[in-house]
Amino acid sequence: MKRGVVVTNIPRANAHDIAVLQQAGTATVHEAQSRLGLLASYMRPIYPGAAIAGSAVTVLVPPSDNWMLHVAVEQCREGDVLVVAPTSPCEDGYFGELLATSLAARGVRGLIIDAGCRDVRALKEMNFPVWSKAVSAQGTVKETLGSVNIPLVCAQQIVHPGDVIVADDDGVVVVPLASVPRMAEASQARLVKEEKTRAVLAGGTLGLDYYAMRERLAEKGLRYVESASDA
Amino acid sequence: MKRGVVVTNIPRANAHDIAVLQQAGTATVHEAQSRLGLLASYMRPIYPGAAIAGSAVTVLVPPSDNWMLHVAVEQCREGDVLVVAPTSPCEDGYFGELLATSLAARGVRGLIIDAGCRDVRALKEMNFPVWSKAVSAQGTVKETLGSVNIPLVCAQQIVHPGDVIVADDDGVVVVPLASVPRMAEASQARLVKEEKTRAVLAGGTLGLDYYAMRERLAEKGLRYVESASDA
Amino acid sequence: MKRGVVVTNIPRANAHDIAVLQQAGTATVHEAQSRLGLLASYMRPIYPGAAIAGSAVTVLVPPSDNWMLHVAVEQCREGDVLVVAPTSPCEDGYFGELLATSLAARGVRGLIIDAGCRDVRALKEMNFPVWSKAVSAQGTVKETLGSVNIPLVCAQQIVHPGDVIVADDDGVVVVPLASVPRMAEASQARLVKEEKTRAVLAGGTLGLDYYAMRERLAEKGLRYVESASDA
Amino acid sequence: MKRGVVVTNIPRANAHDIAVLQQAGTATVHEAQSRLGLLASYMRPIYPGAAIAGSAVTVLVPPSDNWMLHVAVEQCREGDVLVVAPTSPCEDGYFGELLATSLAARGVRGLIIDAGCRDVRALKEMNFPVWSKAVSAQGTVKETLGSVNIPLVCAQQIVHPGDVIVADDDGVVVVPLASVPRMAEASQARLVKEEKTRAVLAGGTLGLDYYAMRERLAEKGLRYVESASDA
Amino acid sequence: MKRGVVVTNIPRANAHDIAVLQQAGTATVHEAQSRLGLLASYMRPIYPGAAIAGSAVTVLVPPSDNWMLHVAVEQCREGDVLVVAPTSPCEDGYFGELLATSLAARGVRGLIIDAGCRDVRALKEMNFPVWSKAVSAQGTVKETLGSVNIPLVCAQQIVHPGDVIVADDDGVVVVPLASVPRMAEASQARLVKEEKTRAVLAGGTLGLDYYAMRERLAEKGLRYVESASDA
Amino acid sequence: MKRGVVVTNIPRANAHDIAVLQQAGTATVHEAQSRLGLLASYMRPIYPGAAIAGSAVTVLVPPSDNWMLHVAVEQCREGDVLVVAPTSPCEDGYFGELLATSLAARGVRGLIIDAGCRDVRALKEMNFPVWSKAVSAQGTVKETLGSVNIPLVCAQQIVHPGDVIVADDDGVVVVPLASVPRMAEASQARLVKEEKTRAVLAGGTLGLDYYAMRERLAEKGLRYVESASDA
Repeated sequence: MKRGVVVTNIPRANAHDIAVLQQAGTATVHEAQSRLGLLASYMRPIYPGAAIAGSAVTVLVPPSDNWMLHVAVEQCREGDVLVVAPTSPCEDGYFGELLATSLAARGVRGLIIDAGCRDVRALKEMNFPVWSKAVSAQGTVKETLGSVNIPLVCAQQIVHPGDVIVADDDGVVVVPLASVPRMAEASQARLVKEEKTRAVLAGGTLGLDYYAMRERLAEKGLRYVESASDA
Repeated sequence: MKRGVVVTNIPRANAHDIAVLQQAGTATVHEAQSRLGLLASYMRPIYPGAAIAGSAVTVLVPPSDNWMLHVAVEQCREGDVLVVAPTSPCEDGYFGELLATSLAARGVRGLIIDAGCRDVRALKEMNFPVWSKAVSAQGTVKETLGSVNIPLVCAQQIVHPGDVIVADDDGVVVVPLASVPRMAEASQARLVKEEKTRAVLAGGTLGLDYYAMRERLAEKGLRYVESASDA
Repeated sequence: MKRGVVVTNIPRANAHDIAVLQQAGTATVHEAQSRLGLLASYMRPIYPGAAIAGSAVTVLVPPSDNWMLHVAVEQCREGDVLVVAPTSPCEDGYFGELLATSLAARGVRGLIIDAGCRDVRALKEMNFPVWSKAVSAQGTVKETLGSVNIPLVCAQQIVHPGDVIVADDDGVVVVPLASVPRMAEASQARLVKEEKTRAVLAGGTLGLDYYAMRERLAEKGLRYVESASDA
Repeated sequence: MKRGVVVTNIPRANAHDIAVLQQAGTATVHEAQSRLGLLASYMRPIYPGAAIAGSAVTVLVPPSDNWMLHVAVEQCREGDVLVVAPTSPCEDGYFGELLATSLAARGVRGLIIDAGCRDVRALKEMNFPVWSKAVSAQGTVKETLGSVNIPLVCAQQIVHPGDVIVADDDGVVVVPLASVPRMAEASQARLVKEEKTRAVLAGGTLGLDYYAMRERLAEKGLRYVESASDA
Repeated sequence: MKRGVVVTNIPRANAHDIAVLQQAGTATVHEAQSRLGLLASYMRPIYPGAAIAGSAVTVLVPPSDNWMLHVAVEQCREGDVLVVAPTSPCEDGYFGELLATSLAARGVRGLIIDAGCRDVRALKEMNFPVWSKAVSAQGTVKETLGSVNIPLVCAQQIVHPGDVIVADDDGVVVVPLASVPRMAEASQARLVKEEKTRAVLAGGTLGLDYYAMRERLAEKGLRYVESASDA
Repeated sequence: MKRGVVVTNIPRANAHDIAVLQQAGTATVHEAQSRLGLLASYMRPIYPGAAIAGSAVTVLVPPSDNWMLHVAVEQCREGDVLVVAPTSPCEDGYFGELLATSLAARGVRGLIIDAGCRDVRALKEMNFPVWSKAVSAQGTVKETLGSVNIPLVCAQQIVHPGDVIVADDDGVVVVPLASVPRMAEASQARLVKEEKTRAVLAGGTLGLDYYAMRERLAEKGLRYVESASDA
């Protein structure tokens, strides 16, 4: 990670694949990805119901200093998602209505920030979704450089510029750019399979039978007893 | 606590008493119970407005392993509440839409889990309420046994199978099976009394007077002064 | 901080200034105040959408003991906001529907409590907003004195009786009484300016240009490179 | 859990078994117990190096109220360990030098408290070990009853009076009274086995070989590649 | 709280009173002060065994910016204690060996910082004690002003310049300047009384008897039963 | 990050550079690195005083499953440091005396684990240092694959196999392999400079003067006033 650098030309994934990942949602994509890539569970949406996917534009920021967000806006395109991580832990409110206005004007789909966010009522009215570590009105200064579009760690996951971010009420998952096509396909397959499973289970068939678990459970030693005193 | 045991026959409370406790709600039941039995305040509903009561089917699970949830489904009946606790702290997403589909098909009223939950939008659409420690898309494995319907500690309280769980926007309280009839009666009495008190206070009567607190406050030494400089 | 004292006569700010601060909201007032006075970000509204401002009536309470809240009710007037802080950290549910009924009957606008709150569904139905550290059904005793209308620390900020509290979805800020007129004026000026800025940014003008940041960024050494390999 | 009760006659385990468990230590006993019974990892010793085992005398205390500790002292005997849990979370300093003086005079071996402790320098000089959630000088009141020698939840585990507590630098584990003889035997067997294993591993034999793991790892699909580019 | 101000002339307490408070220690002084004034329990010494008291020189610092510490050094005298609080929460390492060298050269007794500290091994070797929220090597910038010797909130307590800070292994308590003589006297009286009590308790007399608690416990309803089945 | 892969051939830094970094210590290296690369401050040594540097052998582990640690031992050489990160947050005790015995037999210098560690007394006696998120006796299973020597995120920083880890009482910093020579040089230069500065400051020269800060502080608007009333 270097300070003071803005990379202007980053790769982005195919729009169709991104749309498929968005429809699949965080939990399904995360399963498709062998349960890797999930951001920390403290990353929560500032209002319920939003669901997005898009290409990561990454921003490394100093603690309590949001100067680089202004630099990053210029690097964003239609369909991007801004991903922000501080160089040391901070819950201050780096982002609010004015920055969201700029991003919305460029077609950015949302913000993922491992720090704080403010103006949450206005953001909800604008329909600009944010996943953040905290809500805080605490403002920030503009004194120190960070970087834009370098690889960084956001909420315990590595995010490279151009990776695809999928975010909804279940949290945020990052899909490395190179595996996007494969993950889109795998996620779609899971959706089909889950739909079928849901119908079977709704009909009352037990998962124990549908997934054929009884034998392996018995092998591991599971015992059924009628009452606690038999245990 | 033993591993690898499923108790198939557990006692359950009277349906009428359960209905009374549900109507009274967590805070009132907890007061009726001399302020004991409240689960830790980190147990929050995944969406606001739900309010349930039901018989606990308990599940002890290994960290990051939800195999026993599939075993537990079969032990549930109409009106039950599933209560899940890991053997060591974990916030992974043990539970989602498919397990909820199975539980809903059996008439289960909700889930209490001292760990994580996912698919929160789908669960809300299904009207299947969950109180959990975290929302997390992180999936789990199916490798290690736990137990079903043994006494366990969930979010700092002992829960025995068949105890009544009451849960709403204020949190979750457990009522030991043996005291359910007495607590139902006491809760109902409190509701009546609170309704009367509410009307008095809404009319402007002070609690200081209604509860006759002034004399004891004076005995303890409370002083009224006009300004800070007199203090 | 003294125990066992109730100050009955406290100063209050001008109603017009309070109304201006309420309209400006927490984030704008906090900026107007040179980014000072914000309560800790763990102070969250129990339901979204409320926005209030009013004069602080302060209550110092022992841990797990809400006796002084009953004493404080009598000291409240139309337009006040109750501000409660425990003498040692506590998340118990000091406050619920009955106390809210009393406060609402006196025209109090809301509660700020560095501890727990309960009966959240009823409070929402009453439209009585609360910002708290926790939601907890855990009840409290009435055994030990605290004080009313003395200066105290609530969620990391000093609050004097009569200071103005501004609270909304972004959190809670305290404005010292003496600076209320100046902060009301400054907040209004910021609102006008922000409105103008929002229009400019919505039109696609970059903050980099609007705030004339490019030169200073270059002076600090910011470099633009086309690809990561050039960094 | 009932309030206001002191049970005066509790069972206790065999002194020899307790001595064996103490020598085995927390980690070994916990393994012998199928990895159950460990108190939450936030329970830390106030100074390093202490290692005890003894019979639990349990105390349920109200938040910020240590009155019942004075009641509990009288119920303690030579070789006991005091186990204290509050009815709602609290980090205040319930316990210090004077109570330790009383307990030491009765031969009590230490204190396990899911709350705060103070006078840590004096306790260290007295060689009276404490495992606590916090160190805090915050004093407590004596106003409200709790109970002595009833089952309770301490730091996420159920403790019955007379259960054996084992505590050292690795934390605290509870052994149910009925299983003490079996666990003492199993722990001793583990010590012997671990001693042998340690010698083998110190000689350079790999655990992979000693535990014969290679085949099962291969079955699960583990691949060895020379460089990252081969992965 | 104002930014950008250094107050050069602050009052200080009597050296003898400060020495008495230091000898009494945090827990005793806090009791003498009716259990008020204790800083949050997360303020821990970076090494055990230190015990100091001194006059507070206060420093309000921006998050992740330690410039004002350099300004504050010049305001310190023999016997002072530096008290540092950030304007928003931060755990970065504001303070290390070089600043400690400057403070030691002026006779400062220690540092209380509601943020992070580094160079802990060197500080221990220098015998320069620090109570902090965190240990962190994370360095800070020098870009934004704060203030020196203004009242501030440090770890949940108000500290005015010149107040006396008492700190040891039990934590940190602040004594308001005006009450220092009274608190010194009260602390000394407590020490004498505690010494006497300790001797009595060491002899085996129960606190129940020495403090004459039995009657009031019985009035509250405490019951003694021989076994759990009698409860 | 892939599962089920062990990379057997990783690059390592020059032994001399590693020795220089070890001598410089965490705080100095972190400064030399423009304040980047510091692991989260919750990573604490299990006993004070240890200071190491070495080449990272990385291990990605499932939650509560330490199987891959046994695989990783075989990949370690003299002078390495094992770096362990779970795929979802976990505080269980993955590591204890037996694994340390194996690592010590191969000349490994220590362990960095974003999870729990046990047997801390034995590890201290062996002089095998560990920096961990928690101390916990909670054992783990051996069921699920992870990977060895792939890039991972440990406590909020990216670590590649072969990067140099520097750890002491101030925490843990990672130095990317490619920049090791440059950072060793820069760290050594800082040590020389700090030694000189220390001597100047110890002589009583103020940092304000030595770093020539007064002019810039005045430009920013810093004002000195004699008393608070002048502020």
